[in-house]
Amino acid sequence: MHKLLRPALMSCRRLLSTQVKELPDHRALVIEKFGEPVDSVILQTKKPHEVLPKKLESDQILVEHLASCINPADINLIQGVYGVKPPLPAVVGGEGVTRVLAVGANVKHLSPGDMAFGISTLGYWQSYSVQEGGTFHKVDKDLDVTTAAQLRVNPCTAYRMMKDFCKLQRGDTMVQNGANSAVGVYAIQLAKHWGVRTINVIRDKPNKSEIVDELKGYGADFVVTEEELRDTEIMTPILKQMGKPKLFLNCVSGKNATSCHRILDYGAYSVTYGFMSKQPLMLGAQTMFRDQQIRFFWVSQWYKEREQSRRDEISNMLNEVADMFKSGILKPKRSTLISFEDRNIAFSGSNNTKYIFSINK
Amino acid sequence: MHKLLRPALMSCRRLLSTQVKELPDHRALVIEKFGEPVDSVILQTKKPHEVLPKKLESDQILVEHLASCINPADINLIQGVYGVKPPLPAVVGGEGVTRVLAVGANVKHLSPGDMAFGISTLGYWQSYSVQEGGTFHKVDKDLDVTTAAQLRVNPCTAYRMMKDFCKLQRGDTMVQNGANSAVGVYAIQLAKHWGVRTINVIRDKPNKSEIVDELKGYGADFVVTEEELRDTEIMTPILKQMGKPKLFLNCVSGKNATSCHRILDYGAYSVTYGFMSKQPLMLGAQTMFRDQQIRFFWVSQWYKEREQSRRDEISNMLNEVADMFKSGILKPKRSTLISFEDRNIAFSGSNNTKYIFSINK
Repeated sequence: MHKLLRPALMSCRRLLSTQVKELPDHRALVIEKFGEPVDSVILQTKKPHEVLPKKLESDQILVEHLASCINPADINLIQGVYGVKPPLPAVVGGEGVTRVLAVGANVKHLSPGDMAFGISTLGYWQSYSVQEGGTFHKVDKDLDVTTAAQLRVNPCTAYRMMKDFCKLQRGDTMVQNGANSAVGVYAIQLAKHWGVRTINVIRDKPNKSEIVDELKGYGADFVVTEEELRDTEIMTPILKQMGKPKLFLNCVSGKNATSCHRILDYGAYSVTYGFMSKQPLMLGAQTMFRDQQIRFFWVSQWYKEREQSRRDEISNMLNEVADMFKSGILKPKRSTLISFEDRNIAFSGSNNTKYIFSINK
Repeated sequence: MHKLLRPALMSCRRLLSTQVKELPDHRALVIEKFGEPVDSVILQTKKPHEVLPKKLESDQILVEHLASCINPADINLIQGVYGVKPPLPAVVGGEGVTRVLAVGANVKHLSPGDMAFGISTLGYWQSYSVQEGGTFHKVDKDLDVTTAAQLRVNPCTAYRMMKDFCKLQRGDTMVQNGANSAVGVYAIQLAKHWGVRTINVIRDKPNKSEIVDELKGYGADFVVTEEELRDTEIMTPILKQMGKPKLFLNCVSGKNATSCHRILDYGAYSVTYGFMSKQPLMLGAQTMFRDQQIRFFWVSQWYKEREQSRRDEISNMLNEVADMFKSGILKPKRSTLISFEDRNIAFSGSNNTKYIFSINK
């Protein structure tokens, strides 16, 4: 916690006006127009009173932002090709974790000092903000900040896609592309935990052997490149040993997904959650004749549908996933903490690490 | 009924051996290799004893084939690109109607003289055959033969796709391509009956105005060509009046389907039952972000899944659809009866008529 925030935490339970001046300058990564992140994201500094209301409403909370991921979804949002287009200018950042500094009178499930994140909050890339308390989920205090910052999106995307479509049994096989993405490495670890075997498709890269080793370290059974996936001499013995996949997790689409579809079992489920090839998902007649089930998954939509009426489903999953991190069943994807100033490293980098903004140190 | 079949009907209840010689020669359209229908289908004539067993087993029936459709599925099967590849040589014909000539001792739901068709029978393009009685559905005797011959596939494909995916309400809108296909005209009539409004996409052809008139005669609200569908000046007022479609029936795929997807409502269902463009169905990120539901429907699969354990679902639907034909709610697609000798007219023809083989006249 920033040392300057401590006085605010002590005393601003209801009325902010007197404490606001004690807060440090507010820093935020902001987009004023959609485009490539390197060109579009600016670091904006404002005085506390310019960004905070004078008074905390009874349902509101004041939070200090601790850490926030740089996810593919953030990049797509900045580019203007995401499913949500916020009014501009907008603070970016779809996933992160905060510490509660002050709560309104009606907020009972959170107290100052709690670590928490919003179920559908956008705008994590800033120092502090006022939020609707009812939309925030309290995180187990034993979870470290970096893990908590990446709890809501990627591991939960993998968890839901593996639970909600087909009922995978121990010994079943699944295939996924983008296997070294954050979702990919959580899918491998969940599969290992649940006794499901995985075929993991990656792009051929100079550091391929490093990636293969990393994925096998998470528990991957087979790791193949796109080219190897199309080679029947390589795939036939693998499929003979593993059985045809009953589930396909697709974040690439295009030709890569078409190749994955070719090895799927009759009646298999294909769940698409991304289009990293920038190509569509292409489905031919064999999909219909082989009774394959095509589904899409967007975790933001999943949360949104449950935020009002089925909060227990959300809490149960988040608590279960948090427990898996605490017990070591899930290990976070290798990550690098960076500052707002170093944002362009994250925007242009692709050296197999996940970047996380460390916000208030 | 062929006059030579009458003596068989009278007496061959159990033992065929003595009656077989009274049957006329057996004629069948057969494929010996997969390929274009004009090249691949031959008319084969055999003596009755060459195609019939000596004795009817207790679960079997002897049927005279009355009429059989030439469906796109038959063409695809002959080409070798269908979901089923029968061992060759094979008699073709996936849909038709027969009259029962004789029944085995255990067959209680059928009697000689009944009109009936098999739930999953292939091989309608022949004079007569022995079938498993349990797989046959008795058709209301008041239904004319031509209608009965086309009951099982096309109207039921439309019926299921409109019932099983989204719950259409009166006043809702749906869109379909291939609107002047057999499935298309039944979808229009069912929509009219259920109070659902239709946008119908056809290919631009010299006889376009004739097709538009025909489809409007069935109850189509709007008929547009593929080009018109892509013209926002044409489509914006239509969509304003009709509301965005909640259901899309797709038998074309390729770019045509992509254009149809663009006008769909948030959360709409897209149901693919064909690939007449020979192009895949292509789905981009908007499908995921707009929570659109992608499904496939293959009526053969639907029947197969229910044939053993849920026969009542099959019978209820077939009886309801038969009643709709009898009461005039459904009118058959305009059809032309032809003989086996004239098969190439059906294989090469595309003059907006459905061809049906008249088999035993």
